[in-house]
Amino acid sequence: VDTNLFPGGFNNLSPQMLPLAVQAAMAAIEKICPEAKNLLLIPERHTRNTFYLQNIARLASILRQAGLNVRLGTLSDEIKKPTWIELPDGNRLLMEPLSRLGLKKQRLGLKDFDPCSILLNNDLSAGIPPILENLHEQYLLPGLHAGWHVRRKSNHFAAYDEVAKRFAKVVDIDPWMINPYFVSCSNVNFHERKGEDELQTAVEQVLKKTAKKYREYGIKEKPYVVVKADAGTYGMGVMVVNDPAQLKGLNRKDRNKMSIVKEGLEVSDVLIQEGVYTFEKVNEAVAEPVVYMIDRYVIGGFYRVHTDRGPDENLNAPGMHFVPLAFEQNSIPDLGAKPGSAPPNRFYLYGVVARLALLASSLELERSDPN
Amino acid sequence: VDTNLFPGGFNNLSPQMLPLAVQAAMAAIEKICPEAKNLLLIPERHTRNTFYLQNIARLASILRQAGLNVRLGTLSDEIKKPTWIELPDGNRLLMEPLSRLGLKKQRLGLKDFDPCSILLNNDLSAGIPPILENLHEQYLLPGLHAGWHVRRKSNHFAAYDEVAKRFAKVVDIDPWMINPYFVSCSNVNFHERKGEDELQTAVEQVLKKTAKKYREYGIKEKPYVVVKADAGTYGMGVMVVNDPAQLKGLNRKDRNKMSIVKEGLEVSDVLIQEGVYTFEKVNEAVAEPVVYMIDRYVIGGFYRVHTDRGPDENLNAPGMHFVPLAFEQNSIPDLGAKPGSAPPNRFYLYGVVARLALLASSLELERSDPN
Repeated sequence: VDTNLFPGGFNNLSPQMLPLAVQAAMAAIEKICPEAKNLLLIPERHTRNTFYLQNIARLASILRQAGLNVRLGTLSDEIKKPTWIELPDGNRLLMEPLSRLGLKKQRLGLKDFDPCSILLNNDLSAGIPPILENLHEQYLLPGLHAGWHVRRKSNHFAAYDEVAKRFAKVVDIDPWMINPYFVSCSNVNFHERKGEDELQTAVEQVLKKTAKKYREYGIKEKPYVVVKADAGTYGMGVMVVNDPAQLKGLNRKDRNKMSIVKEGLEVSDVLIQEGVYTFEKVNEAVAEPVVYMIDRYVIGGFYRVHTDRGPDENLNAPGMHFVPLAFEQNSIPDLGAKPGSAPPNRFYLYGVVARLALLASSLELERSDPN
Repeated sequence: VDTNLFPGGFNNLSPQMLPLAVQAAMAAIEKICPEAKNLLLIPERHTRNTFYLQNIARLASILRQAGLNVRLGTLSDEIKKPTWIELPDGNRLLMEPLSRLGLKKQRLGLKDFDPCSILLNNDLSAGIPPILENLHEQYLLPGLHAGWHVRRKSNHFAAYDEVAKRFAKVVDIDPWMINPYFVSCSNVNFHERKGEDELQTAVEQVLKKTAKKYREYGIKEKPYVVVKADAGTYGMGVMVVNDPAQLKGLNRKDRNKMSIVKEGLEVSDVLIQEGVYTFEKVNEAVAEPVVYMIDRYVIGGFYRVHTDRGPDENLNAPGMHFVPLAFEQNSIPDLGAKPGSAPPNRFYLYGVVARLALLASSLELERSDPN
């Protein structure tokens, strides 16, 4: 359960969803900068992950089809001149070094490319590179404070908590249906075994509340929690716990795993989130839904599938694969139709949750930088 | 070859295209009236055509899914109170009588429904009903002057001619590729056989120009023209001619057919349009593409297929049927991809022509009523 503001995996979207993505991008551009012609896309630094690069290729293609000139500017120090990178599907990407432009060097672009908008697909886990700062009359999206150097899962889920509660009241459902329990815990040091007691108490608290809900709804499974680095991303710094005692006996390997997240950052704050059993299956393998949005539009999604993992495990791990368009995305319910005439449609529900999460993200970003 | 501003046939769109339609409607609403909650949809008067009513049901469903309260107000005198109409697919529509609202009766709505926007799906062939006039602070879309009481095919194609020529210059193609020849002819009276000579001359002119192009491109077929009532719609007042002499010998039946169009209006101006051979086939039957747009977005299309007609005949006729989603709508070309790596994609081309036609319509409407 998470909200990614720098999504990878656009290449996992089914080609059938592309028109929707292109149209959403067109609407987004029209709102932000109707005159936009040039867009600079800044990907993650790691240039050798062809899976990620296919995501960039797909994203660039969506934006091109929306009518923009799209070029790629990299933060990588290794790329000192425009460099073609071949992709496994036969396509290729031109990666170019970023450059400050203008007499006062107030704008960001490429040597011969002055963009009106800049789209970050780099989550800034390592902090803000100076080349991105103090831009003059250019739109940078998402804003710099949306990077993981600022973002905290706890802030996001606090905002989501508010949004989900208000929404649940409006549609008269138990907010727990769309909002798992969580609690955050600071000053944890897995290496030095500091804060273990507080962490155990927090885990116990979430497990107890979840167990109560399980009893209320007659759910027979055993509650569990997922312990996550509060500033972590990329599936790193994540651990599944179903008994607080487990935290006492963590071996060195597990402690190392939890200590360091992307870009080598050390973990001190963690989020303890109620685990949600992955009940959906694709070809007998557990599958969890991933929903994609562009601007305020749900454009598609897919299942993340892991054949070697159980329903209570983190599927964002090596060995996972993706099954695009397992969603029945076409049967949007019609309020005017007779009740029961449409087939059950999980994707619609996931889309609602994704839209609530987007609302929560905007609250979260507003609070972490009101400007 | 035509542009309809009050499209029927939304029910022919494949369900796969619905998300695109809903998203386009969302973007359109946000632009026109972001606070819009209530929308009144005004259909054609004929309430017994269940095929047309399924179109209305589909259109209402798209708008509801975009987040609006949608109700149907009818111009029909036969409906004096809210009336449910059953549809063949098991759904039903509530058709309600229109009503002027407010102390000064300045707004249009239903007895208990004050809409911020009103969407016309009635082409106003019979003129503007007084109940639609002088609305106060309500958006009426399309504007009243887009109705067929004002619209003329000749104005539309004159505007399309300009747009197509400019576009063809930009992409460096022969404008004839996207713009068939046409000429208009006024003061024709089929009943009284007035204007026959002028009509013959006009037909001859278009046939000659077309023949020249056919020679230039090595096309072996025999040129033909389609004679259409300049103010006609609904597939009425249309005749195929491949020899000017045919116009001399028109029998009474043909002359009657050409004299009267929708709502019993008499024809006096006609458009002579170069006929375009329908080369595409669906299951061995000739098929012509129909493209749908909402706002500025191409949302889908289908083939109009007629098993009993030839490639030079009007397919908008009894016996026609529709094959939704024969288009390969998913392969939007990627300019960044290697040339030749994408399959041929006619739908994309049709979408470009549709967008040019939309541009032409906006020029046409601006000129027929600059306010």
